Amino acid sequence: MVRFIALSGTTDVTENFYVYETERDLIVVDCGVGFPEPDMLGVDLVIPDFSYVRDKRNKLRGIIITHGHEDHIGALPFLISEVRAPIFSTKLVAGFIGLKMQDYGISNFRVNVFDPEKDSITLGDFKISPFRTSHSIPDSVGFVIDTPEGKMVHAADYKFDWTPVDGRPFDISRLSLLCSNGILAVLSDCLGSTSPGYTESEKNIEARIGSIVSEARGRVFFTTISSNISRIRQALNVASRTRRKVAILGKSIDSKVKVASQLGYLDLPTRLERSVKDLERLPDDKVMIIISGSYGQPGSSLYRLALGEHDLLKLKEGDVVIFSSDPAPPGSKANVDFVVDRLIEKGAIVHYYDIQEDLHVSGHGSQEDIKLLLSLTRPKFAIPIGGTIRHMRAFSDLAQSVGISKNSVFELHDGESVEFRDGRAVKGAKFETRNVLVDGLGIGDVGEVVLRDRNVLAREGVVIILLQFDGSKKKIVNQPEIISRGFVFERKQKVLLEKASSDFLFFLRKRINLDRKSLKDLAVDFFERYFFEKTGRRPMVLPLVVEV
Amino acid sequence: MVRFIALSGTTDVTENFYVYETERDLIVVDCGVGFPEPDMLGVDLVIPDFSYVRDKRNKLRGIIITHGHEDHIGALPFLISEVRAPIFSTKLVAGFIGLKMQDYGISNFRVNVFDPEKDSITLGDFKISPFRTSHSIPDSVGFVIDTPEGKMVHAADYKFDWTPVDGRPFDISRLSLLCSNGILAVLSDCLGSTSPGYTESEKNIEARIGSIVSEARGRVFFTTISSNISRIRQALNVASRTRRKVAILGKSIDSKVKVASQLGYLDLPTRLERSVKDLERLPDDKVMIIISGSYGQPGSSLYRLALGEHDLLKLKEGDVVIFSSDPAPPGSKANVDFVVDRLIEKGAIVHYYDIQEDLHVSGHGSQEDIKLLLSLTRPKFAIPIGGTIRHMRAFSDLAQSVGISKNSVFELHDGESVEFRDGRAVKGAKFETRNVLVDGLGIGDVGEVVLRDRNVLAREGVVIILLQFDGSKKKIVNQPEIISRGFVFERKQKVLLEKASSDFLFFLRKRINLDRKSLKDLAVDFFERYFFEKTGRRPMVLPLVVEV
Repeated sequence: MVRFIALSGTTDVTENFYVYETERDLIVVDCGVGFPEPDMLGVDLVIPDFSYVRDKRNKLRGIIITHGHEDHIGALPFLISEVRAPIFSTKLVAGFIGLKMQDYGISNFRVNVFDPEKDSITLGDFKISPFRTSHSIPDSVGFVIDTPEGKMVHAADYKFDWTPVDGRPFDISRLSLLCSNGILAVLSDCLGSTSPGYTESEKNIEARIGSIVSEARGRVFFTTISSNISRIRQALNVASRTRRKVAILGKSIDSKVKVASQLGYLDLPTRLERSVKDLERLPDDKVMIIISGSYGQPGSSLYRLALGEHDLLKLKEGDVVIFSSDPAPPGSKANVDFVVDRLIEKGAIVHYYDIQEDLHVSGHGSQEDIKLLLSLTRPKFAIPIGGTIRHMRAFSDLAQSVGISKNSVFELHDGESVEFRDGRAVKGAKFETRNVLVDGLGIGDVGEVVLRDRNVLAREGVVIILLQFDGSKKKIVNQPEIISRGFVFERKQKVLLEKASSDFLFFLRKRINLDRKSLKDLAVDFFERYFFEKTGRRPMVLPLVVEV
Repeated sequence: MVRFIALSGTTDVTENFYVYETERDLIVVDCGVGFPEPDMLGVDLVIPDFSYVRDKRNKLRGIIITHGHEDHIGALPFLISEVRAPIFSTKLVAGFIGLKMQDYGISNFRVNVFDPEKDSITLGDFKISPFRTSHSIPDSVGFVIDTPEGKMVHAADYKFDWTPVDGRPFDISRLSLLCSNGILAVLSDCLGSTSPGYTESEKNIEARIGSIVSEARGRVFFTTISSNISRIRQALNVASRTRRKVAILGKSIDSKVKVASQLGYLDLPTRLERSVKDLERLPDDKVMIIISGSYGQPGSSLYRLALGEHDLLKLKEGDVVIFSSDPAPPGSKANVDFVVDRLIEKGAIVHYYDIQEDLHVSGHGSQEDIKLLLSLTRPKFAIPIGGTIRHMRAFSDLAQSVGISKNSVFELHDGESVEFRDGRAVKGAKFETRNVLVDGLGIGDVGEVVLRDRNVLAREGVVIILLQFDGSKKKIVNQPEIISRGFVFERKQKVLLEKASSDFLFFLRKRINLDRKSLKDLAVDFFERYFFEKTGRRPMVLPLVVEV
């Protein structure tokens, strides 16, 4: 029996973490981070629940990685701190994993680099053959995983791009060869399953960037996602044709560009200037700055530039800013809008998602790409991954349109599994998983109770009631001291809180035989009701009793 | 001299509130609410700053309303509580204003209903002639405002729809007539200024809804914005053609439909059943339920249905849900996605923005609509309203493309004004305005300090340090008691907080001559650093000193 488990990555787009398992062996495919939901206040990152893999660490033969995006490699430092296993990836991905481990100060790991055009990897019961795919980051692959029950195709984020910027298209012929003898199951990216047609080629963007840049009379600021090396390469091509010199601004782009150029994925022109200072001596129409912050991230270089807070650069009237990205992640649209407004206020000409949507193409295949993959591989079973409930349902409809029966498509929630045995597939056990939240230095120490408290504090604030209790007389002494934060405006607060305090004393006047516990309960009841009546709000009420 | 002031409504889409003023007279156009920004935690509504109008209440001659959307009428109950002035609107808008006042328990107001096909209103120096526009709510108008300096066209939210559902298109001939003798300035909706072409007619939607409903074999749930009476009328038409009986579910749609039908804007078919219970006896394919919650609002009827928490209805496999709306307001997309996922999990077939975007058209004109208005009115000056900084800039580009010079377009921030004198226009004073936040029963009592505290509490939680101080010995007695909320997970918390407490005592061991103030300062410094070192977080530290 072979078991596939979607430990996470099927219902929330990100946080990809999948397991293939036989009696004796287990492999992990991808290990990415997720991004906090709006109600996960203060949380920095979400990582997958490793407990299933930790419990079976003796069987773990390796971790294979499809590509270098955060939601596929970002949780590796956390996993590697808990289990020992070799990592396998292509060369550029290995470089990006190195950067990531460096960020966390981790050095005791090893990445084995494979060549997706000829290598295969044997990990216990699994023989894994990578094949090149197209995506919005170079050196992406899928895997044909030969298992005791048959071959399975793991196609994480992909599209079919026949004219990619790096000249290395989706390796459809290798995939076809690997698929001879029949395919048991396809695990496929489903994020584009609601978009009609084919996704456009990355290559088409260069001409559009080119026409904006050649008409620009001021400096050009170009921003995209830091890992999108092909997009950066196209910007460099345009700079070269329009005789602009280039500087790179922002740590995330700078470090990724360095790795990509060291590994031969990006030819940095010799005239590329590294220092923004050097560019100051040039006329504005000879300057391009590739800058990080395409999602409007607070604190990023572009954000600081927009707010006039960058210490190296000031924006000028007539500067041109090109956003070559789609603000898809939660919250990013609001951030981009904020940055765009500030840029426009400072006189920049801004090309952003709303005016000029042709400056970005998705890295994910659309409906026809997905149908092509399914038609090419002709699997008995199909499992959508990398989307949400909506996308899985739309994928299921697509699969049915190319002849895969509804019962042969498995829409899996996090922790759910499919068991393959004797050419058949059934939904298997659901394994308990939870989101592991990373906040500051803490991993998993923020849970439901803490988040619930933060949500109350966020909306309503906190009121602290300091009660001095005389245990011998069983009553309180002195007026309760009340302080609040995030509740009401200070000027109004003083009167309200003083009145509340004396009203509480009056309320208590006939109570006798109080103890600490009953005093606390009475205080919570009284003040919750009191403040709701007076203000319509329900702050968190925290009574503190001091025995005097 | 005539002054126009954008007191609010030009930089944030919503919260429309404009003033026209001469030496002797002042009128207000629209009085809407805004929606809280993501960092305005716990805030229910944002309303305009009325202080300018309040200060000049003796000059205030009237409040004229363009249409019945929340961001144009929602703040009337607050304004009417502060100043006395007659309100003027069309009939349906007057009905919706009545509903709104009822919500706030306000009865001492008066709405004067005008007929936009023939009436004019004289308010001091201003002679106001309404003209019918097209928008996503019936009975919308613009105004030609004849001032001592010339005529100004106030065109809030509009598009040109020649085939509106109610058969009353944009009254272009009346506007043309009113515009003879030349127009000084146009104030124009600019929200669609980044969308190419003309906005589609509302009418085209009916056929698409019809084809979905006629193929549906289960019950149909139809949702749209409650004020979109024309859309609801189209759903009723479809129900009638497909022989489905209709119930209305949800307070907001129900009350608006009632008002619209009482005032003759909606013909409720006699067979329209009001009770969901009655529909239970019918076959599924004879049922349509018009339900509120098109933005996925938590607590709405559709939300509760999706979560299986509605007390009247349960979702069934094969039910069809149609979202006929665009989740544009901040946060609404995430809410809709959540609801759609839950509906799909329960077996519903869902038509939402991402699969079937032709189920909604915007109420705002696109680039060609805006050019048409500018070409028709040929103003000397133009002022974009109802958009953001981005939209104003795009509007300015459009205006230039039809021959209005850049200097004749005024992009106004909140509080900014334009002064018209002798056929010329100059940017006038900027009047101090602030967002007035409504939270519970409080109006304006949540300000920057409270919001800053809420943001810290939200992300990091609070730690309260209870210190018992012996004033005579100038030192603390007993171990400090520490409690926290929203900071760390309880199990971990106990050890951390106890250690922190004893470490603080150790830190204080050599301090002498403490007083309450210095003790507090020391505690804040110590614990802020301590918790950041141990957890990477910066909770709000609140020391409380009790003298014992």
